[in-house]
Amino acid sequence: MSQSEFALIDRLRQRLGAIAPGQLELGMGDDAALWRPSAGMDQVACCDTMIAGRHFLPDADPADIAFKALAVNLSDLAAMGATARAALLALCLPQAPSAQWLDRFCAGWSALAQTHDLALAGGDTTRGPVLALTVTCFGEVPHGRALRRDGARAGDGLYVSGTLGDAAAGLAIQRGELALIGPASQALLDRLQRPTPRLALGLALRELASSAIDVSDGLVADLGHVLAASGVGAVVHLDALPRSPALQAAHAAQDLSAQGLLDCQLHGGDDYELCFTVPPAREPALLALAQAQALAITRIGEISDGNGLRLIDRQGREQAAANRGWDHFRA
Amino acid sequence: MSQSEFALIDRLRQRLGAIAPGQLELGMGDDAALWRPSAGMDQVACCDTMIAGRHFLPDADPADIAFKALAVNLSDLAAMGATARAALLALCLPQAPSAQWLDRFCAGWSALAQTHDLALAGGDTTRGPVLALTVTCFGEVPHGRALRRDGARAGDGLYVSGTLGDAAAGLAIQRGELALIGPASQALLDRLQRPTPRLALGLALRELASSAIDVSDGLVADLGHVLAASGVGAVVHLDALPRSPALQAAHAAQDLSAQGLLDCQLHGGDDYELCFTVPPAREPALLALAQAQALAITRIGEISDGNGLRLIDRQGREQAAANRGWDHFRA
Repeated sequence: MSQSEFALIDRLRQRLGAIAPGQLELGMGDDAALWRPSAGMDQVACCDTMIAGRHFLPDADPADIAFKALAVNLSDLAAMGATARAALLALCLPQAPSAQWLDRFCAGWSALAQTHDLALAGGDTTRGPVLALTVTCFGEVPHGRALRRDGARAGDGLYVSGTLGDAAAGLAIQRGELALIGPASQALLDRLQRPTPRLALGLALRELASSAIDVSDGLVADLGHVLAASGVGAVVHLDALPRSPALQAAHAAQDLSAQGLLDCQLHGGDDYELCFTVPPAREPALLALAQAQALAITRIGEISDGNGLRLIDRQGREQAAANRGWDHFRA
Repeated sequence: MSQSEFALIDRLRQRLGAIAPGQLELGMGDDAALWRPSAGMDQVACCDTMIAGRHFLPDADPADIAFKALAVNLSDLAAMGATARAALLALCLPQAPSAQWLDRFCAGWSALAQTHDLALAGGDTTRGPVLALTVTCFGEVPHGRALRRDGARAGDGLYVSGTLGDAAAGLAIQRGELALIGPASQALLDRLQRPTPRLALGLALRELASSAIDVSDGLVADLGHVLAASGVGAVVHLDALPRSPALQAAHAAQDLSAQGLLDCQLHGGDDYELCFTVPPAREPALLALAQAQALAITRIGEISDGNGLRLIDRQGREQAAANRGWDHFRA
């Protein structure tokens, strides 16, 4: 069943515009969305585009496409220490979607939007050569309390949430470059297709962290942004990098070499974990909080004077840290 | 000269991120943008996508592309009675742009952004099959004072700003369907390529209008949204529809038939004028304001009971009002 543009918009409004209506003064169906800012809160906004054949396979499950397009934006809010409030969806489609496609799409979006009380406030639908989505997310953070990239200071502890490298291994599986099968394979694919934005952690870090960023382009690339913005360097202890059981299984089964595993952890994008720094005086409070709230965090190194990133292996030797983060325009 | 993604972002930041920095707490270069809402103001947001070959010619001047992508969003803010504050730009490019392309793009964006004190707060750059832009605009409006689509009441006067049909005639010229040449031709093309968002008028209407919308898909289609949202009908007097001298010249030169001219005025999109309704008691104040501030507005009819749009010609006869507004998924 094919649907015209207005029918498509109506369906999105019924399914997604009805989530968390209390977040908005005015949602879909006018020239713009309206919301009343909470007292004392700065407003936060970000956007990300995902394109078929570039950010996901053309035949990907529409539920995964919608989930991830929203998740990567929520991850940016998490990295600011913000709470989510509303989103806009600019959807470009090569043809009118089937009812089944739209149902799957809405199911994937809803799964995440309902968890985070996020209203779909509006957007745009257009026809174009390939499926492409630009999601804009709005959130709030108490004035002056946002987690920024420029606050890291020498001596701060360097942390990441969750585990690193899973999404890169998942991508290798999807591309047929990694032959792993079974539950570990599915776990890695899930991490690629349905990343978890760390909003609760971001909130908790507002009172503790000196800087934060989300790992979207790879640890080395993203940590590099923090170091550049803060004018500091860092030491990362390679054997401290947290690995998931699934990534460990891929390595143990010899599907993934030691260097391949390290590459995934240092340069693999799409994990959407938080990388953050905490002044030494606040590290005990961080550990207590992590324990109390069961937040998975790992100390992977320290911020240092000077600039540049030093990667130290188990034997205390320094390894080269070529930046292999994702550049969309690199040949 | 080809530029990598980071160089592209740096250039956008230098050129466009530096406009109106006072609007933001934190602009480009972090995970998200931050701003402090003005006291008592609701926050307003909208987005629109423009795609090469669909919304503009693939070889269009990048300055016009940027100008229009921003203008159509500012027009949505105008239709809410909002002031502009910041924008996000999601830019999808088939290859790294040349320095010349980027200069032209920035020049077109700046021309409009500086006029409206609008900061480029962030965005995203990706590679994709064709040039595509999604612009998100943020603005503010005093709480409860936004111009909505659902406030029109029977007896209200029906108005439009500026003139109607110019952009549709410009499109016909661009497509070679209308053979007009000379200054009138250029004037019509300018209206298509560089629409003027009516922000000052939107502001003035906050205290006067009962509803507003911008004419992006054609008067009949867009007025139809207001009538549906408000649960009312309307009468439009066809000979009251404001025509520009350029459109009149096209008609006089017999390049455009009487029916063609009417089609442009009723169903042509892309004019980005405001269509709004004003309760009778406030119409004298509107006219006084229009005169004092030299705002070009025209009364084209009235809101009526019931539903549906009646088009009345000079002889008092009713004409059919087929909705021929733009539907991206119509065959």
